Amino acid sequence: MPFTPATADQRFVLTHVTRIADLAASERFAAASDDVVDAVLEGVGQLAEGEWAPLARAGDTVGAKWTPDGVVMPDGFVQAYHDYVEGGWGMIGVPEEFGGQGLPFAIQTAVLDTLGSANMGFALAPTLTVGAIEALAHHGSPEQQALYLPHLATGEWTGTMNLTEPQAGSDVGALRTQARPLGDGKWSIKGTKIYISFGDHDMAPNIVHLVLARTPGAPAGTKGISLFLVPKFRLDADGNPAEPNDVRVVSIEHKMGLHASPTCVLSFGDHDDCIGELIGPEYGGIRAMFTMMNNARLNVGLQGVQVAEGATQAAVAYALERVQSARAGSTSRDSVRIVEHPDVRRMLMRMKAQTQAARALVYLAAAQVDRATLGEAGAQNRLEILTPLAKAHGTDIGCEVSSIGIQVFGGMGYIEETGAAQFFRDARITPIYEGTNGIQAADLVGRKLGLDNGGAFNALIADMKAEAKDATLIMLIETCDEIGRAMMALDADDKLAGSYPFLTMLSVAVCGWLMERQGRIVADSGEASDFLAMKAAAAKFYIDQIVPEALGLKAAATAKADVLYSVAAELFAA
Amino acid sequence: MPFTPATADQRFVLTHVTRIADLAASERFAAASDDVVDAVLEGVGQLAEGEWAPLARAGDTVGAKWTPDGVVMPDGFVQAYHDYVEGGWGMIGVPEEFGGQGLPFAIQTAVLDTLGSANMGFALAPTLTVGAIEALAHHGSPEQQALYLPHLATGEWTGTMNLTEPQAGSDVGALRTQARPLGDGKWSIKGTKIYISFGDHDMAPNIVHLVLARTPGAPAGTKGISLFLVPKFRLDADGNPAEPNDVRVVSIEHKMGLHASPTCVLSFGDHDDCIGELIGPEYGGIRAMFTMMNNARLNVGLQGVQVAEGATQAAVAYALERVQSARAGSTSRDSVRIVEHPDVRRMLMRMKAQTQAARALVYLAAAQVDRATLGEAGAQNRLEILTPLAKAHGTDIGCEVSSIGIQVFGGMGYIEETGAAQFFRDARITPIYEGTNGIQAADLVGRKLGLDNGGAFNALIADMKAEAKDATLIMLIETCDEIGRAMMALDADDKLAGSYPFLTMLSVAVCGWLMERQGRIVADSGEASDFLAMKAAAAKFYIDQIVPEALGLKAAATAKADVLYSVAAELFAA
Repeated sequence: MPFTPATADQRFVLTHVTRIADLAASERFAAASDDVVDAVLEGVGQLAEGEWAPLARAGDTVGAKWTPDGVVMPDGFVQAYHDYVEGGWGMIGVPEEFGGQGLPFAIQTAVLDTLGSANMGFALAPTLTVGAIEALAHHGSPEQQALYLPHLATGEWTGTMNLTEPQAGSDVGALRTQARPLGDGKWSIKGTKIYISFGDHDMAPNIVHLVLARTPGAPAGTKGISLFLVPKFRLDADGNPAEPNDVRVVSIEHKMGLHASPTCVLSFGDHDDCIGELIGPEYGGIRAMFTMMNNARLNVGLQGVQVAEGATQAAVAYALERVQSARAGSTSRDSVRIVEHPDVRRMLMRMKAQTQAARALVYLAAAQVDRATLGEAGAQNRLEILTPLAKAHGTDIGCEVSSIGIQVFGGMGYIEETGAAQFFRDARITPIYEGTNGIQAADLVGRKLGLDNGGAFNALIADMKAEAKDATLIMLIETCDEIGRAMMALDADDKLAGSYPFLTMLSVAVCGWLMERQGRIVADSGEASDFLAMKAAAAKFYIDQIVPEALGLKAAATAKADVLYSVAAELFAA
Repeated sequence: MPFTPATADQRFVLTHVTRIADLAASERFAAASDDVVDAVLEGVGQLAEGEWAPLARAGDTVGAKWTPDGVVMPDGFVQAYHDYVEGGWGMIGVPEEFGGQGLPFAIQTAVLDTLGSANMGFALAPTLTVGAIEALAHHGSPEQQALYLPHLATGEWTGTMNLTEPQAGSDVGALRTQARPLGDGKWSIKGTKIYISFGDHDMAPNIVHLVLARTPGAPAGTKGISLFLVPKFRLDADGNPAEPNDVRVVSIEHKMGLHASPTCVLSFGDHDDCIGELIGPEYGGIRAMFTMMNNARLNVGLQGVQVAEGATQAAVAYALERVQSARAGSTSRDSVRIVEHPDVRRMLMRMKAQTQAARALVYLAAAQVDRATLGEAGAQNRLEILTPLAKAHGTDIGCEVSSIGIQVFGGMGYIEETGAAQFFRDARITPIYEGTNGIQAADLVGRKLGLDNGGAFNALIADMKAEAKDATLIMLIETCDEIGRAMMALDADDKLAGSYPFLTMLSVAVCGWLMERQGRIVADSGEASDFLAMKAAAAKFYIDQIVPEALGLKAAATAKADVLYSVAAELFAA
């Protein structure tokens, strides 16, 4: 599948949505000059196009393999990962104090966007490492930071997150993995974790597992959880990986997609010899987990953008090449490229518009991480409220766009050889992991709406209202405002019953706000280019056709829970 | 995956949507008494539950296999198919004059609904045979009917449709397969066909291929196409399968799903010894194809119902069993079954409502086949206008519901072992084959709206308006009326630009009309049962939440083509 980095759109969104110049004006992010940003986008684009994209098919067809010696990646992955590390791409967003480049999280987001658009499953490895870095940078001891962070920052070692257990999926508080103090500041870890992405592989000399576990006598539920660092290989006195820890790969899952990413069942302490260290205070696990997961949620939203970008490029290339049927209403009876047929063109336009909208939404959220780092007023709240939208709506778009991609390919889309099906299969995990989209919706209405007594929500609505011009977009924003305010007063069931449609409405409002702004900037600029012409069309399509659709969700967003509970649970089987 | 036939809903829809009693009042369908209908539903339910459903997983994981001796089905399929034939299930809808039961097409639809809900890929074999029966019954000579129909009617022999060639997908007129007259009324066939479902298998002693081909000197395009009957084994003087014809299975496709259905590349006449017979007149191929395909389109719409039913049952069973997290807002901190969480319950309710709505839509269309057989005024027009809706919206619902099914399963849904992923993968072909859903939308706005000078459309709108009570539903019907009438005056590009959203709106209006009626019948009946309570809830949910969504498509349905063509085709790659 040919792949071209979406550099023009990334640059445009970084400039006009994240307003990267604001960030570069700060001392902290002074490195993010225009030249540096351009060089980063170009450089990672070359790596992605030249090395990562060509491996995407093998990632699916060969996939990561479980062997008695551990998980083995398909041919070429070890070298391509090595080149990612050598190129310094892992260091982009890592603070300078930990040896990184200190560039904004928004730039790191663009780097991962490009890598994941080229090869989504592969890009999950660095994505997870970012989570481990965040957890250590915020909650690790100076010794832990000194020993582990430099290796994680480069990507030389990779990181994992070990939350889920068979009985503890969305309900993390139900986990049972145990940590027993060994008296020397070390802990003995025992338990089984499932769904551990890149829980093992052969691309790095060490893997740093971050493991949630329960200490003796810990309170029940999430309050009693602590976070532990468990290296695959224990470090020797010089800090180098030495003897293996007691961590075993039990199996890898047989998944519908994302085959390049080994999803491991890990067993810790089969021989009572799995040694870990506490990160942060005892019982501080859930807080550390949220640090690790909040950005992970943005990065999963970004996976929606990645798969949408890849699927769109593939569909466009096919539609520009495949010749089939004369154009209806044309005087010519000659067959034309399918891109000329109105309904195919509508599908492609929708793919472009949705992909660009998702990118704007996720990058806007990513920029709040940086603004919060700078201590900008309201940035943390803005980040908090945008996170569920970016995760859920970004991934919903990834699923929708990859499904349209199959439709553009027609029968060929259902045959695995074309690769269109891979995007569709890969995409489908993203609304599930890192908190299902239903949980994102619950987070939005249960926590984020009420944040700062509604201040976070009100500020977002006010910013959108102040800038929006299109009447339907304004109506959508006002409807969200009305529903959101009313929702705060509802009981849990009623709130949750409408949460998902409400999340979609608010997400489309944010996307509409950002797409309209981008369209206006094109119109006002007086400049012309292929990219700008397409941006203007995509923005218009988004405002004219996708924004009104979201208004259709009002009834569902305001519906109460009664109808859902008007029948007993068992009657769903009737 | 446990499976229970949806007999109660089928019975309810047959009674109140297809109004089967009207049909049974005729001489032609007098066999369709209540007792017979009940016995058919119960009998096929037993076959589906007892034999077909247990094979569904192997259909996916083992799949049909290409071997040098032809295509081999997974273990158990040959016996299960045999029992289908022995049980007389293929004969249900075949007219008595051809040895069948002469029951309405609507009843045959219910039979295929049950079989396909149990095992969708498998049920495609009888579904295709139905198309071959239709083509022969309407266009075959008395000799052809005598030789082939009895064996196809029982299902002892199966049928295929050979339309597509590599360069002729949606554009059937571009096909190149040749038929050369042999002078004895026979023809020599030469060419390659792709995407031939059940093009070969080991469940029947003969396979009757219906092949579109071009005769010498035939006009270009669809006008010059003829339909040929090409048996896998030629018949001897007694009409029994004897020497093999020159038809070769080149390969079977590696598809994303529907693995139980072998999708063959067939080569006819490699050794210039493939002998076929003309069905109907020369150049009558496209007409015969439409006979064969029109009901096939309803049957593909029915596949949407099938996969939605299967996915819903699986998700409900999981949600009734899986315990995770306490219910928000509850005083108890005990974990509950996930069916108790409002957003999960919303997903399940949507699955139920959409599945029932799709069933009502497809069965209504199926009943028009019977009413047209009876010569009922307006029935043929009603069938024509409902066919694209049933095919496209039925399959869209199949895809949506199977995707929600994965979401209910959470992480387990992405693991192939649970089977939730199979529904999702199987479903995705249905919006593509038998005319992509985009082509259905083009058919709706290009042909069906204008049928009888708009009379077919007006009559449908009038019937809906006369019965609908809910204000939003009435608004949707009136909006469809307005858009449909305006569309007739538009040029091809503008018509097609809004065709797909319009098709969705009109489909939801029809579903809303039928769901509201069913809800009202429950309320008025004064009867109570688990099924009726669920029907009432699903109907209310559909009217209150899904109907308003469709109104949100108005802007897209009325949008003109300008924005799509505001950029050159190549700019989609910008």
